[in-house]
Amino acid sequence: MSKTRKLHLGAFMRPVSIHTGAWRYPGAYADANFNFAHLKRFAQTLERGKFDAFFMADHLAVLNMPVEALKRSHTVTSFEPFTLLSALAGATEHIGLIATASTTFDEPYHIARRFASLDHISGGRAGWNIVTTSNPDAALNFGLEDHMEHDERYRRAREFYDVVTGLWDSFADDAFVRDTESGIYFDPERMHVLDHKGEFLSVRGPLNIARPVQGWPVIVQAGSSEPGRQLAAETAELVFAAPYRLADGQSLYADIKARMDKIGRPRDQLKILPGAFVVVGDTVEEAKAKRAHLDSLVHYANAIGSLSIALGHDASGFDPDGPLPDIADTNASKSGLERTVNLARRENLTVRQLAQRLGGYAGLAFVGTPETIADEMQQWLEEEGSDGFNVMFPYLPEGLDDFVEKVVPELQRRGIFRTEYEGRTLRENLGLQRPANRFF
Amino acid sequence: MSKTRKLHLGAFMRPVSIHTGAWRYPGAYADANFNFAHLKRFAQTLERGKFDAFFMADHLAVLNMPVEALKRSHTVTSFEPFTLLSALAGATEHIGLIATASTTFDEPYHIARRFASLDHISGGRAGWNIVTTSNPDAALNFGLEDHMEHDERYRRAREFYDVVTGLWDSFADDAFVRDTESGIYFDPERMHVLDHKGEFLSVRGPLNIARPVQGWPVIVQAGSSEPGRQLAAETAELVFAAPYRLADGQSLYADIKARMDKIGRPRDQLKILPGAFVVVGDTVEEAKAKRAHLDSLVHYANAIGSLSIALGHDASGFDPDGPLPDIADTNASKSGLERTVNLARRENLTVRQLAQRLGGYAGLAFVGTPETIADEMQQWLEEEGSDGFNVMFPYLPEGLDDFVEKVVPELQRRGIFRTEYEGRTLRENLGLQRPANRFF
Repeated sequence: MSKTRKLHLGAFMRPVSIHTGAWRYPGAYADANFNFAHLKRFAQTLERGKFDAFFMADHLAVLNMPVEALKRSHTVTSFEPFTLLSALAGATEHIGLIATASTTFDEPYHIARRFASLDHISGGRAGWNIVTTSNPDAALNFGLEDHMEHDERYRRAREFYDVVTGLWDSFADDAFVRDTESGIYFDPERMHVLDHKGEFLSVRGPLNIARPVQGWPVIVQAGSSEPGRQLAAETAELVFAAPYRLADGQSLYADIKARMDKIGRPRDQLKILPGAFVVVGDTVEEAKAKRAHLDSLVHYANAIGSLSIALGHDASGFDPDGPLPDIADTNASKSGLERTVNLARRENLTVRQLAQRLGGYAGLAFVGTPETIADEMQQWLEEEGSDGFNVMFPYLPEGLDDFVEKVVPELQRRGIFRTEYEGRTLRENLGLQRPANRFF
Repeated sequence: MSKTRKLHLGAFMRPVSIHTGAWRYPGAYADANFNFAHLKRFAQTLERGKFDAFFMADHLAVLNMPVEALKRSHTVTSFEPFTLLSALAGATEHIGLIATASTTFDEPYHIARRFASLDHISGGRAGWNIVTTSNPDAALNFGLEDHMEHDERYRRAREFYDVVTGLWDSFADDAFVRDTESGIYFDPERMHVLDHKGEFLSVRGPLNIARPVQGWPVIVQAGSSEPGRQLAAETAELVFAAPYRLADGQSLYADIKARMDKIGRPRDQLKILPGAFVVVGDTVEEAKAKRAHLDSLVHYANAIGSLSIALGHDASGFDPDGPLPDIADTNASKSGLERTVNLARRENLTVRQLAQRLGGYAGLAFVGTPETIADEMQQWLEEEGSDGFNVMFPYLPEGLDDFVEKVVPELQRRGIFRTEYEGRTLRENLGLQRPANRFF
């Protein structure tokens, strides 16, 4: 490509925030998980900020944590993604609407219909975040005692994807002739009966809705495992990645794009967007202080479990206000242990502060001024760590407003983010081709 | 009750109309099944007309008909109800939003979540039309070769209803204390884990969304079979009935309300609304001519099959332009045969006209002026044939606009229909109590 690559930005949303302390932050909308007006405001602000997409995270169960932690967490409830995003479609005009939907606990006919319907309602702005749902508590809500194994989940996901995209192709784009004179509504030669019978699924079709405006809604995935990366290289158009630092991002980026080369998919037809937790201040010190304040709102009960998991070692006996003691090698993942110890040493955190960081959000974070944040984002873009980011806001509305009012203009000044939407659909704004109908 | 009973009006909607010839009618929105702007206009007009609810019909398959008939039918596709009604929630403020959802081909956890979410998004305007889905073609879209038997479907429906309502009661209304000072988001003593294990379903819970604004969305049913009536008397708050004439309506009305008496449910806590096809003219002759024109747009291929079914006799050899020949008794339902023969004789219809009537819409219809239509509706209300109607519009937008602009004011003048919405929620507008939480 001769043009400068530009960042693509998604907003990775839970109603109140992904950070468990966020609801207690001054000015936060603590009731956003059952107050639609707040979500509407967030979506409209994001659209003013020219975000590519509103990306709705989801779970199919109340999160499995000890009651002492659960009762302090706003993540206990949320809106259901299809209903929420359909309502937001009417309140916005440009922003993409990405819903998370599980291939393990739903039916492909329902999923295909709902996304097609959302795509028609929104004028071509739907995206499907394909998840295989690894939460065993979800299985219990769907009549399954035993959770499906990882490899089986992925095989089913692949078949599910084939069925859903096949159902979307039930009608040719020109099937609906609507000739009032002759009385012919559609051409049956331009309708395909899928008749799928596979290892996991048996679905006849056709789908009872016209082909989506985008052909197919944009296909989104998050898997970073071996089968997850391969599935992404073959089928995804947007990848939600979770690298901790630039080097990890570059390695994942190179790996997935190389897998695309091998099967002859153009590299620009898949955008890799790591999740990035962004805290904006007028100075770097102010941003750090905001984050420290936010982390301090995480209760120790919600924090210490996360620390124990990261260390592979029960941390409940440690002095909360002392430094992290030396930890013997355990059967925790070595990289997780190292990363946690390094974090504690580098930022000189007490056990409590370290635990609260992990109990809040400990992944990739940009904490600083609009300039330092734009510097980091630009570096990731230019050094092939990513094609943009799925931004996570630490607290809402303030954290979101700060990003749109302060960081977005800085990115636009540098010419690495759009000032107007390029197209009409999510696919057009992401620079993705409209898929051909496999049957016509 | 000392106050005059008033009519309740639902709009029973398919995007283009329930009449198969409607898309060819002059001025009709033939593309309404994939053009959201039209649906938004319909919902907003209905709200101006103070309708209780927008009632979205649904199917889980392309309708099973011969291809010669199917290709002439706009009913081949539609929007998916949850996505459509959620989008309409944002475009309206008062009107109820009733979605059809199947207990045979979906999961109670999904259904409970989606209705709860729609209820929160719409501020308490959701209703659930519980259907058991008798279409065997739907089974093939959900991996089931054999369609479930009627009685088994109803037993599953009853258990499904218990699970969904139980999940809606997962949290007490006052569970979410959100005390930022102490950091307690909700009181775990006010959360209930359902732990349901029944004949068909095993669902742990709790639901990951707060209790709906209405407690429960309004429960709607359509069954008129013996188990359907009993299920309605026990659980429904709104019944979509399909009587052909007042006497049938009165008999159904008396039967269901008597069943309610037996179990101690107050009669006014269930509203019976027959479907009524309404064609408005400035004179009775004009209304009849409009209907005749509409029926004439039904292709003979779509019509003759309906006539054969109604007669229990292959009608394809009859002279289309002659009168209906005498039919020997067959194994068709006697009442269906009699009704069809009587219709032909009474209106002096040719075989073609009779077939087109049946291929369009042959159920209860009010065809006349605003005055004659109001007369009939008032008679049904006063003589306990119904508590109102689910109005079906013959063609849109004109048929809907006519009803709202001409019939609604006439009903209001007579004091039998509201001039302003009584409450904030669908439940309040229907005069239904908010159900108590069974666990708190």
